[in-house]
Amino acid sequence: MKPIEEYVRSIPDFPEQGIIFRDVTSVLQDADGLHLAVDLMQEKLDGVEFDVVVGPESRGFIFGVPIAYNLHKPFIPIRKKGKLPCETVSIQYELEYGTAELEIHRDAVKEGQKVVIIDDLIATGGTNEAMIKLVEGLGGKVVKAVFLMELSGLEGRKRLKGYDVESVIAYPGK
Amino acid sequence: MKPIEEYVRSIPDFPEQGIIFRDVTSVLQDADGLHLAVDLMQEKLDGVEFDVVVGPESRGFIFGVPIAYNLHKPFIPIRKKGKLPCETVSIQYELEYGTAELEIHRDAVKEGQKVVIIDDLIATGGTNEAMIKLVEGLGGKVVKAVFLMELSGLEGRKRLKGYDVESVIAYPGK
Repeated sequence: MKPIEEYVRSIPDFPEQGIIFRDVTSVLQDADGLHLAVDLMQEKLDGVEFDVVVGPESRGFIFGVPIAYNLHKPFIPIRKKGKLPCETVSIQYELEYGTAELEIHRDAVKEGQKVVIIDDLIATGGTNEAMIKLVEGLGGKVVKAVFLMELSGLEGRKRLKGYDVESVIAYPGK
Repeated sequence: MKPIEEYVRSIPDFPEQGIIFRDVTSVLQDADGLHLAVDLMQEKLDGVEFDVVVGPESRGFIFGVPIAYNLHKPFIPIRKKGKLPCETVSIQYELEYGTAELEIHRDAVKEGQKVVIIDDLIATGGTNEAMIKLVEGLGGKVVKAVFLMELSGLEGRKRLKGYDVESVIAYPGK
């Protein structure tokens, strides 16, 4: 089997000039790539005790759900504003241009639960920091965050200082 | 284990008056519910020969990926306009108010491939019909569509006439 890096298609200048977009769809559209990505992310959880998997809309669903399924854990979606039907807590956070808002169901994480956050990518860490705040606001404890890809040059880890963060593929640039 | 129906929370008058919203997050946030939902959907594919799983952003990712993983198939995401980085084909379709546009990567489905469509819900069938057109536009053949839930009163099946459509839970109303 090829190494996981070879399943990722890199697209220069998307979504804007100077950015190299790391495309997760090329991993998914190969059955071996999909399997390998899930397995390598899941390995990062070996020996980690936790209660629930949390993942953000929509690419966090891609890896969060199979890992939750394989390890027989609940999966808690974090969604964009207005998508969750029951009582939510929300958080606004800053993007490069403007702000975004994420929500979680208030009853989704219980006081004291150990939470693992799963997403495809850590870039600046802004979304991840917002997710951690949502989880902690409900009394959950983030014991680990696992990403398929990391854009190391954007220093997302700095923002998540004090948390256990792991990625399968680290790209040195942005 | 409880029957799958009991994991689904029903919310009256969401997102608007007169609609009973069937909440899939209550299924996911119970490890047994998540497992059962994936397994029951996957059972509908017993004996079905196919090449790829296709699922739409974002709730189609929830069940599409674990099923693709379990059956060692590729997963092809259909996304909202502007999210996919490579060459796409797109389709506009009508919603109750206004229109929506979905995209698929042009290289994601190959001529003659047998495709299974996975989503959480079939309501009016509009989104599903659009997905089928996208897949068929690339030369794929939709051999089955599997949903966790079906709102039978909205008659989505009529729109997908001639296709093999199955759901795990059928609600008689809207």
